[in-house]
Amino acid sequence: MRANLPLDADRLWADVMALAEITDPARPYTRRSFTPLFLEGRAWLAQRFAAAGLATRIDTAGNLIGRIEGRNPALGVIAIGSHSDTVPSGGRFDGIAGVATGLEIVRALRESGARLDHTIEIIDFLAEEPSEYGLSCVGSRGMTGALDRKMLDLAEPGDETLRDALRRVGGNPDQLDQAERDDIRAFLELHIEQGIVLESRSLDVGIVTSIVGIRRIEVVFQGEADHAGTTPMALRHDALVAAAHTVVSVRRIAEQLAAEGPDYFVATVGILAVDPSASNIVPGRCRLVIDARTTNPVLTARFVEAIDGESAAHAATAEVTRASFKTLSDGPPVACDSNLRAALRQGARDLGLGEMDLPSGAGHDAAFMSRIAPSAMVFVPCRKGKSHAPEEWADREAIAAGAAVIYQAVKALDQSLPRSA
Amino acid sequence: MRANLPLDADRLWADVMALAEITDPARPYTRRSFTPLFLEGRAWLAQRFAAAGLATRIDTAGNLIGRIEGRNPALGVIAIGSHSDTVPSGGRFDGIAGVATGLEIVRALRESGARLDHTIEIIDFLAEEPSEYGLSCVGSRGMTGALDRKMLDLAEPGDETLRDALRRVGGNPDQLDQAERDDIRAFLELHIEQGIVLESRSLDVGIVTSIVGIRRIEVVFQGEADHAGTTPMALRHDALVAAAHTVVSVRRIAEQLAAEGPDYFVATVGILAVDPSASNIVPGRCRLVIDARTTNPVLTARFVEAIDGESAAHAATAEVTRASFKTLSDGPPVACDSNLRAALRQGARDLGLGEMDLPSGAGHDAAFMSRIAPSAMVFVPCRKGKSHAPEEWADREAIAAGAAVIYQAVKALDQSLPRSA
Repeated sequence: MRANLPLDADRLWADVMALAEITDPARPYTRRSFTPLFLEGRAWLAQRFAAAGLATRIDTAGNLIGRIEGRNPALGVIAIGSHSDTVPSGGRFDGIAGVATGLEIVRALRESGARLDHTIEIIDFLAEEPSEYGLSCVGSRGMTGALDRKMLDLAEPGDETLRDALRRVGGNPDQLDQAERDDIRAFLELHIEQGIVLESRSLDVGIVTSIVGIRRIEVVFQGEADHAGTTPMALRHDALVAAAHTVVSVRRIAEQLAAEGPDYFVATVGILAVDPSASNIVPGRCRLVIDARTTNPVLTARFVEAIDGESAAHAATAEVTRASFKTLSDGPPVACDSNLRAALRQGARDLGLGEMDLPSGAGHDAAFMSRIAPSAMVFVPCRKGKSHAPEEWADREAIAAGAAVIYQAVKALDQSLPRSA
Repeated sequence: MRANLPLDADRLWADVMALAEITDPARPYTRRSFTPLFLEGRAWLAQRFAAAGLATRIDTAGNLIGRIEGRNPALGVIAIGSHSDTVPSGGRFDGIAGVATGLEIVRALRESGARLDHTIEIIDFLAEEPSEYGLSCVGSRGMTGALDRKMLDLAEPGDETLRDALRRVGGNPDQLDQAERDDIRAFLELHIEQGIVLESRSLDVGIVTSIVGIRRIEVVFQGEADHAGTTPMALRHDALVAAAHTVVSVRRIAEQLAAEGPDYFVATVGILAVDPSASNIVPGRCRLVIDARTTNPVLTARFVEAIDGESAAHAATAEVTRASFKTLSDGPPVACDSNLRAALRQGARDLGLGEMDLPSGAGHDAAFMSRIAPSAMVFVPCRKGKSHAPEEWADREAIAAGAAVIYQAVKALDQSLPRSA
């Protein structure tokens, strides 16, 4: 059945592979936002947009946008997109598969002779991955009014501000209002799953139910950096001991909340830094960052309350100070639009593809886009769930199948979307 | 009573303070072995040795030695010493207080008109602190036959070998045999305690009973660096979770062994490194270094057996691999000589000083010297136990009191040491 997909799987694949070649050769696949390589990738994309007949521009928030006018421009825009930047030593699919999908859909529509009532836009959002300026989703924040102007003062290690960087990639930080949109009627994003659920169930696509909210908490324990040989056990103020107990608590509480169901909950300590980090010195300071994600904010609230209490108790037992227990960021979960999800599900069924509902454990541009437009996502399986790594892999047919689902949904939504006066 | 010390507290203090000035100004107090600053410090010391009437040389193992011949050279040598190198951003007392003590004792003996039967040597051991070549106690190893010739191939980050470095500071790596000694009849070392026992008991000196053996163990857990958002709790292979449980085990078992008494036992996880260390990635690999110290090797054996079992169990529970459980180094504890300890105790009592027996939780040159000669140590209190840090502090009177105890012991031992045919 996949042989009958309404688009060209090879052409779509070729775009993804071609962009993958635009990488730092020393650490494939790296195309960090705002770098010369990123701009090289965008120049290549813009040329491909133009070749597909799209009018191409960069908005004031630095998003690369290709547009093909609808027969009834007053109906507004159906947008398809994702991002072309990568993490350091990332993969070939995360982000770019969604941009290439939009491009292929436009080409396939044109070749089929179909012209839609709605205007179509393909969006390559600026800097979806955490950038050197300490911010992710720069472009989709900008498009949705979520780019606080104070964020423009953020600076990378070389001291360039985000304001200057935005100007450098073709945006205009002084006129960000112009990037904010009210004419988008639907936003659709294809992305690799970055998990193993679809692969383990041998399904073609996942229809995303909601995108998790992410809460990041920094905990710092301050003890005393004493000599590891001369300080008896009873006289220690070991910051790592409190931190280690906290890691154990995070794991235990997260497992309990995840097991409750049906909501999704995960929590991770991904960063734990010991100071001074010498074998013969009792750790004097320990910083850890907890990342908690859920589709139900009530679970995060319960999690934070429990960890707050337990980490304070661990500090007291280890006779250290809990110097910080601070929320670094807190994004709410976002439900995907039920109307769009229905269109995607129908598209998959029409194509004879296996689909399931599943939550997104990762953040995406679609989470911001949902602030200004009905939004939904299609996940395609990726090998062993690996992402943000060179071995990240999605099959040619898997990407094409996901793209075809969006193609079907776009055609259906063009007719079924509410047409306001 | 301290006003009646048999030596000049101010002169001793002035030497310590003068050497402290020879430091990397950007990070006091730093005088790393083998560096130009180290050689500058040694040149200053050699000049002070010579001014005190000592014949000065550098042995083939790179130790700076000042010598004053006894009335009966056949009796052999009473040696006093420690080291003049520091850790990075270390203190003003660790090591150098013991070298300056030897120098002051020689001056005080001369001024008192006493000439000893035994020859006296003051030794500034080369590179007691862990050097850039990955080795500590280079000089005392060399003097005691414990400098394995393979160690000469160790290289610092700039690729200079220890062999070349040794030559550069005046040693001779091709004739290390010449540095090995069989003529030393007693070795005495003054050092700051680097702990808080003496200060907390308001005592003047500690007579060291034994120097702990140090066992260093590297444990590496290998899991999977999965996405922290998309990997459900039940599917994780989180290396940090296994590591955190192991830190908790180390602490619990160490507390149990320490509480058994009378032997000294401490264990520390001072290094714990998470890879890749990103808030949104489940830790894929975690390395920790355990430092276990005791006066009784049976305790370390029990500790290692328990940690071996528990860390393997933690790996299994977290569904990660324990990729390494390796002994990095293993030095046995060393008992100080009872005859020398008695002489030191008597010296303290004669001077009206408060003293106690206590173990040394830190390694010292005396541990190596005990291989070739009866050896003992005097600890003096230091403020809040701080060491290896700029705030390291010992009072002028405290150092002078410790030096005076060694002065008394040297005079007594000159008469009481066994005189072999």
